[in-house]
Amino acid sequence: MSFDPATLTYNEAGLVPVIAQDARSHEVLMMAWMNQEAVERTLSSKRVTYWSRSRQAFWVKGETSGNVQELVDFRVDCDRDCVVALVNQTGPACHTGRRTCFYTSVVDGTETELMAPES
Amino acid sequence: MSFDPATLTYNEAGLVPVIAQDARSHEVLMMAWMNQEAVERTLSSKRVTYWSRSRQAFWVKGETSGNVQELVDFRVDCDRDCVVALVNQTGPACHTGRRTCFYTSVVDGTETELMAPES
Repeated sequence: MSFDPATLTYNEAGLVPVIAQDARSHEVLMMAWMNQEAVERTLSSKRVTYWSRSRQAFWVKGETSGNVQELVDFRVDCDRDCVVALVNQTGPACHTGRRTCFYTSVVDGTETELMAPES
Repeated sequence: MSFDPATLTYNEAGLVPVIAQDARSHEVLMMAWMNQEAVERTLSSKRVTYWSRSRQAFWVKGETSGNVQELVDFRVDCDRDCVVALVNQTGPACHTGRRTCFYTSVVDGTETELMAPES
């Protein structure tokens, strides 16, 4: 069945949350947002493209840093209001230089940093 | 360093998005929301507890279905506005009876269901 990006359920701001997951390691890398056109651009270009809520602009991940995300698979959830983008990640996904944005672990009430910036 | 749930950045509705990931398979299972008290309840009980936006009530995952999520690790992102809950999932995570909510794959413009309900 052919996929129509208009069939996703966007929130009141016209956005859907997108979870970027490394296609090889299956590590969750980051969470960001797409509007319908960002979904369309991502699927047609295979370059993961978010909508930046702070800049109110399209955000081709890695366009300036080089840390691009090549789309491998695009998974829609049961309610069609959330997406997992399986990606081949070049370089670190996080703006802090870490592989993933989720580098802080909370176990037994204690917060620990799991990794340092790569460079 | 001790973790204070008040240091997370909650959205205008007082909620933070939570990505539930299977601690063993690393499959992304679902995405839902927590308010500060749901974060506190999850960390103290180790039973993943969301805030249901539709019911405006706490939602102890699996309380009625038995498909509970035992918390293994709680990961906070760089902006402290998104969380990954690594969980031991009992039974299917999705209300449709599938292992994960993200069972629909979009590749080359075509939508495919990757799995059937388990029961």
